[in-house]
Amino acid sequence: MKRKTKGFSWFGLLWANRMLNLHLVPVGWTRRPLKVPSNLLILYSLRVFFSPMLFQIDHFGFAEDRTFKQRYLIADQHWKKDTGSILFYTGNEGDIAWFANNTGFMWNVAEEFDAILVFAEHRYYGDSLPFGNKSYTHLNYLSSQQALADFAVLIQHLKNTIPGTENTPVIAIGGSYGGMLAAWFRMKYPHIVIGALAASAPIWQFDSLVPCGSFYKIVTEDFKKSGAGCSETIQNSWAAIKRLQWLSHTFRLCSPLKTKTDVINFREWLRGTWIYVAMVDYPYEAAFLQPLPAWPVKVTKSKVTGIRALSSLVSHATHDEDGVGLGLPLNSLSLLLPLPYSAQPDFALPQFPPQPTEPFSQECFKAWGVRPRPSWIPTFYGGKNISAHSNIIFSNGGLDPWSGGGVTKNITDTLVAIMIPEGAHHLDLRSNSPFDPTSVLQARLLEVHYMKLWLQKGRQPFGLQGPPNS
Amino acid sequence: MKRKTKGFSWFGLLWANRMLNLHLVPVGWTRRPLKVPSNLLILYSLRVFFSPMLFQIDHFGFAEDRTFKQRYLIADQHWKKDTGSILFYTGNEGDIAWFANNTGFMWNVAEEFDAILVFAEHRYYGDSLPFGNKSYTHLNYLSSQQALADFAVLIQHLKNTIPGTENTPVIAIGGSYGGMLAAWFRMKYPHIVIGALAASAPIWQFDSLVPCGSFYKIVTEDFKKSGAGCSETIQNSWAAIKRLQWLSHTFRLCSPLKTKTDVINFREWLRGTWIYVAMVDYPYEAAFLQPLPAWPVKVTKSKVTGIRALSSLVSHATHDEDGVGLGLPLNSLSLLLPLPYSAQPDFALPQFPPQPTEPFSQECFKAWGVRPRPSWIPTFYGGKNISAHSNIIFSNGGLDPWSGGGVTKNITDTLVAIMIPEGAHHLDLRSNSPFDPTSVLQARLLEVHYMKLWLQKGRQPFGLQGPPNS
Repeated sequence: MKRKTKGFSWFGLLWANRMLNLHLVPVGWTRRPLKVPSNLLILYSLRVFFSPMLFQIDHFGFAEDRTFKQRYLIADQHWKKDTGSILFYTGNEGDIAWFANNTGFMWNVAEEFDAILVFAEHRYYGDSLPFGNKSYTHLNYLSSQQALADFAVLIQHLKNTIPGTENTPVIAIGGSYGGMLAAWFRMKYPHIVIGALAASAPIWQFDSLVPCGSFYKIVTEDFKKSGAGCSETIQNSWAAIKRLQWLSHTFRLCSPLKTKTDVINFREWLRGTWIYVAMVDYPYEAAFLQPLPAWPVKVTKSKVTGIRALSSLVSHATHDEDGVGLGLPLNSLSLLLPLPYSAQPDFALPQFPPQPTEPFSQECFKAWGVRPRPSWIPTFYGGKNISAHSNIIFSNGGLDPWSGGGVTKNITDTLVAIMIPEGAHHLDLRSNSPFDPTSVLQARLLEVHYMKLWLQKGRQPFGLQGPPNS
Repeated sequence: MKRKTKGFSWFGLLWANRMLNLHLVPVGWTRRPLKVPSNLLILYSLRVFFSPMLFQIDHFGFAEDRTFKQRYLIADQHWKKDTGSILFYTGNEGDIAWFANNTGFMWNVAEEFDAILVFAEHRYYGDSLPFGNKSYTHLNYLSSQQALADFAVLIQHLKNTIPGTENTPVIAIGGSYGGMLAAWFRMKYPHIVIGALAASAPIWQFDSLVPCGSFYKIVTEDFKKSGAGCSETIQNSWAAIKRLQWLSHTFRLCSPLKTKTDVINFREWLRGTWIYVAMVDYPYEAAFLQPLPAWPVKVTKSKVTGIRALSSLVSHATHDEDGVGLGLPLNSLSLLLPLPYSAQPDFALPQFPPQPTEPFSQECFKAWGVRPRPSWIPTFYGGKNISAHSNIIFSNGGLDPWSGGGVTKNITDTLVAIMIPEGAHHLDLRSNSPFDPTSVLQARLLEVHYMKLWLQKGRQPFGLQGPPNS
């Protein structure tokens, strides 16, 4: 099947500018809407719910008074009323079923915590569309603040409707952008969640809170660690990429690269590939976005004769018989595009190398009708000055480029950082595996330890109404 | 000067339904826009500023990208860089000059705290109008959340532009609705203010957090305290009010009451009068809204021969030669009407006696195009479950009806309540006076004590960027 480079170009340019060069999208990777896999349903008695139509589309203004249905998944077979808890996944940019399927940690500890598992879908993703199939042309209400308000209302709704949960303590759990949401949820709604596990959550990857280059530095480090020559091969490739004919030949492209734009797109696609491989450098075969072998960076090293072999690792799933199907792997990396995550202007991240903001602002405005507000996230969520908060675990993978924007040192006794040197992007949230490095096993034990501590100390006897007769 | 009861009726009905019977407006009293009084400027070197046009009209959505100018007042003659602080008044529903003039406490302690005083105007009031003179037809961005975001951005702006203030700790101070804002500001932006003094802030006067009748119970108590007969006279009056002719005669009304609606309006006007007198039962002559003598409830008692004398106390400023100018006193109580405070749907308070919500919702929608969301404030700000926060003083006047919705007992070591038995509505925020009861003097001392404690313990060495090289 031939794919047009035309479609690819548009997506590619937009995606590349946003995701890579200009970093509009900070974290995570998303997927096309999925159906909840039937094996998940059978394995875990996971049930799918939609909230009643009581979720305000706009929590912060009153002119838009319409409501929408939020989707959430519940597994309650381990729930015990008196000793139980609610482990609440703060859904991020994608179909919630996919996150439920990729957050094995919660399933693994459900029994230990006598827990109800709840996976809440982020508005504008999956089946939680405020304006149905017209949602992507009404993006005004896509923001982390609105999403957190949804979670707060959903938890109130659950407590009002599931008998025996009125006073059950809730712990927020999330990875990547979902990890930011978990941390921010505890910061802004400590009356609703007693603590948060924020895995691979680069809450400081905003404005000028961390040095611009920290992200790419870690990508480069990952490839360096995999052995001599690998990082250099990639570095040398950037010059070679300018030679159109060589490129089309080496990559056996379906359509030869012709214009300068084609080359830019191709380069950005490659850059995305390296980032992706570094992010998902898991110790076993995984299909975080694309099916990949264990330790893909190392595998790459052992197989690589040039950049082609490495990138083909990522694109093999969509490999045509006669050539690399450039379109599809790129689209699979840019699946977030139809999901308008990148239209959240507060997610404008610093550019590397630093670039004038005005052209970027113009570009955003053209594409989405909105302009970036780079300082809003630190102003609203506190930047590096978050020590007044409590009960948040920030876990980070040493191999994960996003750890550069994460909290990697303890801030207080109750705002703690966990480093997982052999960990990729929120490896700790994945299911236990015999291939797990010791560091991630230790991290999970520590996470459970802190979560139990919160439950012991902070079991909230009363809801928003306070104690009786207060 | 004759006033039409027609105009009065409309304002009266709306105001009565909102302020009194249905409680849409929870706290405080407001004034028509004022110019900053020149004596204030001379006395205190108060300077008037407007923020640059960098304040987003909508902090929580991105489609409305316009900005507006916020007004704020600064007095910095006592400011000392190394030991200083910023005392920040979180402006509520009215012209900020008026609050600066009625918050003598801040002026009294400025030198002791080496402080810069800042009085920030609430959006949609005074000269801080997001859409200029069309603001009241664009009310979508009038909410406490937007106002708090304005304050956060303003403080960032001040720290960026006033040399030496980068690391100066900020304490939020406010009374009534402004007190709620001060408390909520600390809860939601602890990275921006190290603590808050929330005076007479009924943060629990929402949903079903406190018993419905607590407010009127305190009003009644106030009149009972003033001596035998006073409370009973008022109670008996409600039946008498049904007699139109008697009313028109007794009150020497400019236009006789004719319809049932006239009577309802009149009754609500009277009810407002009692509430107002109870709220502002200050120990000295004051002009919180209307010029009143010291201890107006007691004065009323000594003069009262019926309800007329009492109510005429409030209306005397606008007393016509030949009759009570019903229109003006009511208008002066309903001054908040042209200032669309009551259009904040999250401020829908419980009704007493409880009434079906749907007609109320319909009425709000007709008047303002918005519907009440009674549970949103507790969900967003935590209801009675606020123990995770810190460094907030809740002060309450024992004579103040709003203390029924306030925090009157310590919650933790750092969330403390101060009761002022002889205090009316945020008496503690007013200037020191020889007539002050001991309880308010003690309260002010205690407030200063806690504020100093926060400064000693919590002096933030770094801003949002954190320590150098972190």
